[in-house]
Amino acid sequence: MIELRRHNASFCGPCFVHYTEQQVRKAIDEFEMFTPEERILVAVSGGKDSLGLWDLLLGLGYQVDGLYLGLGIGEYSDASGTYARAFAASRGARLVEVDLPADYGYDIPTGAVAARRAPCSACGLSKRHLFNRAALDGGYDVVATGHNLDDEAAVLFGNVLRWNTDYLGRQLPVLPAEAGFVRKVKPLVRLDEREMAAYCVIRGIDYIVEECPMADGNRHLGYKEALNLVEAGSPGSKHAFYFEFLARASSRFRAPGGHEVPLRECSRCGSPTTGEVCAFCALVDRASASEPVALGATRRPRR
Amino acid sequence: MIELRRHNASFCGPCFVHYTEQQVRKAIDEFEMFTPEERILVAVSGGKDSLGLWDLLLGLGYQVDGLYLGLGIGEYSDASGTYARAFAASRGARLVEVDLPADYGYDIPTGAVAARRAPCSACGLSKRHLFNRAALDGGYDVVATGHNLDDEAAVLFGNVLRWNTDYLGRQLPVLPAEAGFVRKVKPLVRLDEREMAAYCVIRGIDYIVEECPMADGNRHLGYKEALNLVEAGSPGSKHAFYFEFLARASSRFRAPGGHEVPLRECSRCGSPTTGEVCAFCALVDRASASEPVALGATRRPRR
Repeated sequence: MIELRRHNASFCGPCFVHYTEQQVRKAIDEFEMFTPEERILVAVSGGKDSLGLWDLLLGLGYQVDGLYLGLGIGEYSDASGTYARAFAASRGARLVEVDLPADYGYDIPTGAVAARRAPCSACGLSKRHLFNRAALDGGYDVVATGHNLDDEAAVLFGNVLRWNTDYLGRQLPVLPAEAGFVRKVKPLVRLDEREMAAYCVIRGIDYIVEECPMADGNRHLGYKEALNLVEAGSPGSKHAFYFEFLARASSRFRAPGGHEVPLRECSRCGSPTTGEVCAFCALVDRASASEPVALGATRRPRR
Repeated sequence: MIELRRHNASFCGPCFVHYTEQQVRKAIDEFEMFTPEERILVAVSGGKDSLGLWDLLLGLGYQVDGLYLGLGIGEYSDASGTYARAFAASRGARLVEVDLPADYGYDIPTGAVAARRAPCSACGLSKRHLFNRAALDGGYDVVATGHNLDDEAAVLFGNVLRWNTDYLGRQLPVLPAEAGFVRKVKPLVRLDEREMAAYCVIRGIDYIVEECPMADGNRHLGYKEALNLVEAGSPGSKHAFYFEFLARASSRFRAPGGHEVPLRECSRCGSPTTGEVCAFCALVDRASASEPVALGATRRPRR
């Protein structure tokens, strides 16, 4: 039996799988994420959320391929790629692969140091660019990511703690397509981490359990801890925090009329950017010109 | 030495007192709380915040009397009254006293049960009404309360967790006077709990250390815990959370044009209210008609 305190409910395995599917269906419908006619590319890390999402969308009958991005983060990346490939093979599903070191000449540890960014920042920038590029190249309508309720609540908490009004205005489960960008969606926003882990176990999906070694000390882990404390005292808090935000606050932070700075094409890769060269091409320039950095060197201190 | 991580600073006793005064001065000036010509009534509980505030305002040369409200919460109320009176006597300051059981015929444990409110709700309602009443009766310009940065950040967190947009629009360090309500101010918003405790120790102020026994399990204590976790990882987070809210978000939640429902006079006490009888008079009616309740009976379960 899987007990869900925030829903005051307990489920056996098959009922839990049904519950999980219903939550994803509800998110897709409520936020009009995509239709069965559209082609979806799921960004796959080899973890419980992205593999679970891929499995759920396949099960619901959507046209969905996977995209695995090799980040060059030592053994972590090797293992995560193995899980992604094994899942694709087991489902007879198509996995698109992009490899940062082979295709772009750098890895995340080196890129972070070269660009003087925190590792999670260099990684996020690379992922956003390459997910979008792969979707455009492959003719996909939408990129789906495995961000769950805990992820979104933690990001929201971080944005609220500093009242990053720009980010608050853009934190939505669907980002519509605009010039040069495909639509991005988060179909797992109604499910939390524990639920996704349980789903994978029940469905027999092998996934990488380790957190990324570079995320140690990442602020969002601290935000998750703090929110878990609140959730333990008052089940359902995280759900209310995120969904009441969407319902009653989000629009108050939206910029009237989209991009304030007009976008133009990156002179290198053609992506939309506010400058001459986009942030990704600038990162590639710096990273590929610099000496490789060992993984441990950029690992953030545990706090 | 008192070390303040969020300011990256350490102070000896006299320098710390100076720092504390500067923070209060800054809050008073920045939010235009009151002038030296105005008469201030400080709501005094006998705790570190309210006694420290009274001491600080006296030291800064303001015209300030204290108001002690006897809540009838067993030994806790007896002890807190004793600390308030001892402080007033030591400073030769004037303490106005109102006693719920003697003057209004009920105590908080009984009032909460009779009105079917959580104890903190019945207590807050009683305090707001009687602080305002005492200020009007005594000809004071403003009521000052000892809410510190931890208090305000926790209340803000609670409002944000549920996106209580009405409350978010009204959570300000100054509430201006309006028909029937005197101005309310919170001069300690730039100082946290630990700082107020240190201030009282250095200044030799005896205060009641125990928390109110009825606040056990109060949600705000959980919110404080969660925020302390964030603050430990990133000193200054609480300050940024509260002050960036004021600077960049608060106005987005303000109702355009004040009260939506027109106010009229309570038929019983004349206070502004939206109904026929104000919430305080309704509480008094129910509470004074009901059997006294023992303190333990309404204590909330520890979570």
